[in-house]
Amino acid sequence: MPPDLLNSVQLAHTSHLIRTRSPLVHCMTNDVVQTFTANVLLAIGASPAMVIDAVEAPQFAALADALLINVGTLTQSRAAAMRTAVESANASHKPWTLDPVAVGALMLRTEFCQQLLSLQPAAIRGNASEILALAGMSRGGRGVDTTDTAATALPAAQALARQISAVVAVTGEVDYVTDGRRTVRVTGGSSLMTKVVGTGCALSAVVAASCSLPGDRLDNVAAACGLMKRAGGVATEISTGPGSFVAAFLDALYAEGQA
Amino acid sequence: MPPDLLNSVQLAHTSHLIRTRSPLVHCMTNDVVQTFTANVLLAIGASPAMVIDAVEAPQFAALADALLINVGTLTQSRAAAMRTAVESANASHKPWTLDPVAVGALMLRTEFCQQLLSLQPAAIRGNASEILALAGMSRGGRGVDTTDTAATALPAAQALARQISAVVAVTGEVDYVTDGRRTVRVTGGSSLMTKVVGTGCALSAVVAASCSLPGDRLDNVAAACGLMKRAGGVATEISTGPGSFVAAFLDALYAEGQA
Amino acid sequence: MPPDLLNSVQLAHTSHLIRTRSPLVHCMTNDVVQTFTANVLLAIGASPAMVIDAVEAPQFAALADALLINVGTLTQSRAAAMRTAVESANASHKPWTLDPVAVGALMLRTEFCQQLLSLQPAAIRGNASEILALAGMSRGGRGVDTTDTAATALPAAQALARQISAVVAVTGEVDYVTDGRRTVRVTGGSSLMTKVVGTGCALSAVVAASCSLPGDRLDNVAAACGLMKRAGGVATEISTGPGSFVAAFLDALYAEGQA
Repeated sequence: MPPDLLNSVQLAHTSHLIRTRSPLVHCMTNDVVQTFTANVLLAIGASPAMVIDAVEAPQFAALADALLINVGTLTQSRAAAMRTAVESANASHKPWTLDPVAVGALMLRTEFCQQLLSLQPAAIRGNASEILALAGMSRGGRGVDTTDTAATALPAAQALARQISAVVAVTGEVDYVTDGRRTVRVTGGSSLMTKVVGTGCALSAVVAASCSLPGDRLDNVAAACGLMKRAGGVATEISTGPGSFVAAFLDALYAEGQA
Repeated sequence: MPPDLLNSVQLAHTSHLIRTRSPLVHCMTNDVVQTFTANVLLAIGASPAMVIDAVEAPQFAALADALLINVGTLTQSRAAAMRTAVESANASHKPWTLDPVAVGALMLRTEFCQQLLSLQPAAIRGNASEILALAGMSRGGRGVDTTDTAATALPAAQALARQISAVVAVTGEVDYVTDGRRTVRVTGGSSLMTKVVGTGCALSAVVAASCSLPGDRLDNVAAACGLMKRAGGVATEISTGPGSFVAAFLDALYAEGQA
Repeated sequence: MPPDLLNSVQLAHTSHLIRTRSPLVHCMTNDVVQTFTANVLLAIGASPAMVIDAVEAPQFAALADALLINVGTLTQSRAAAMRTAVESANASHKPWTLDPVAVGALMLRTEFCQQLLSLQPAAIRGNASEILALAGMSRGGRGVDTTDTAATALPAAQALARQISAVVAVTGEVDYVTDGRRTVRVTGGSSLMTKVVGTGCALSAVVAASCSLPGDRLDNVAAACGLMKRAGGVATEISTGPGSFVAAFLDALYAEGQA
């Protein structure tokens, strides 16, 4: 059946849930986007924490409400710590989300992400090239760029979602969020978002937060995508380039919950 | 005796000392706040440098005017490098400051911070939960959040300060800075500061800088807290959310010294 | 012969080349400046990617158009990964650029940078103290500060450029870019750029991007310096301190290519 369009009632509901529950999101993410990811989570009313040591990460994953694994600047020792954190999250029934940055093109992360797929992620968020690569249908894009539109990767996303029983969000100019049966389409945003590093990685952290909420996970993840697209649209209108966009975007996310 | 209130003459004096002496602050801090910490130090007229290798860190700690140890994203190898840097700072009679992020809740950092207490920090800056945990009076908060107000941790801060002969700053809506005998109270700031990652961690770097100054250390550390609170208040008035706050905050810190 | 002044036709030409070719720049840089470096590259129309693992870095260096090595927060394991990436870039005939942050003062990086000089960098970008230290003519500055003006290091830059057949950019209030025979002088910018962390490091990433372009390398590297100085000048006029400068600077770099 054709994708539903995300509706604004769901968006408002999920946004409210995040702000009232303030989920503690354990982020094991890449070096480039740590600050922006933390500030995005704070702006929407969630609570970020970055704990990375192989001893502490599994301990913290059991305490937090959700875990994010982003392989952007993976190293072998980080991969080991991430794996123990994922296992701990699973043992504690805490949802974890995978952002398979640049998977397909590079060996270590490709093998690692493939292994993680068997550890039951609640959600996966990637661009078209990444989702195609993860589903075994392409060799990945050029670094973090994507050379495909989200729509072309939708069948791969649906197949992957069914295969591992996860929600898969394939994002781009239009986002598609699917559990393999139902698909939600999310529009909005602006091209300026691709001129700021970390908008996709920060979205993955918001997806991770949304996976800890009560209610339908597919709807909550789609709303997470919608929150970011809406703030991106608002910020683009009042900014004069990618520098002023960053501040306007965080302000817009924050204003969402103050209204 | 009841806490003194920080006076503005002291604040201006300490701010002037930082700008004219431009202390070189060796920051061994967490991954999330490096950029913001460096920009805060530059804005107040100090000189930041991040050197982390186990060979280079002790060498640099002897050259720098002050050292900051922040355990936010501690790993075992970083802990080892930090320890050698602390020992080198001590050997060179350079003051070092501890920011015990999330101590109490997590094993590696809790054990590490307890060990560091015996290595004579000049100052410690933490939130109420962290200071309570460090003083052995609680199990710590939820990640970097604090579940206690600064005032509730003041007796713990005073006991800790006396025990290790350090200045302890327990910060929150109101900050208390104590050497265990005298206590200075610092008001101001705004709740928007808690919606931006790194304001506490950056304050610890300013505290580290202030420990290198001539004059009374307790007064200088309290002034460091006051500088940040005042800039936070100014920035809140002219910003529309946490994104615009960051720029306004750095501008306000910078303007302080240009007046 | 006396230095030429960078001309604006060259600047516009190089800027256009970057935006139309969008070189993929593999950045192995320090922890403090990752986000800003990525955002600067995105703003000028290049494509940043940070890949750091010892297995992945050499694989990626062969795919990317240019490689940046910045030793700001060097560790022994990063040095090993950087070396394999440089060797891979050389094997694939991809240009690599060295930013020798704080070389001279610290052991690990000084030895490492000296070793790298034999691996044929396309370009080196440093401040006066760093270039003097790299050329064996001084002991380096105080951390990342420079205690010399760029002009005093020009003879060292020229000797170094001839010795290893590289373009050397020694930057400061005025930048000098030389291949050892011809030298281009780049003016502009503002002192506010020194109050924001990472402007020099980000320039090195733009230099790396410019080394991948067709045409004369010396002219392209000088234009990279000119791009940053011009945006710095524009941003200084419309900002009220180092915080607002960051946004205005990225907006100015971005506007350059939209005109």
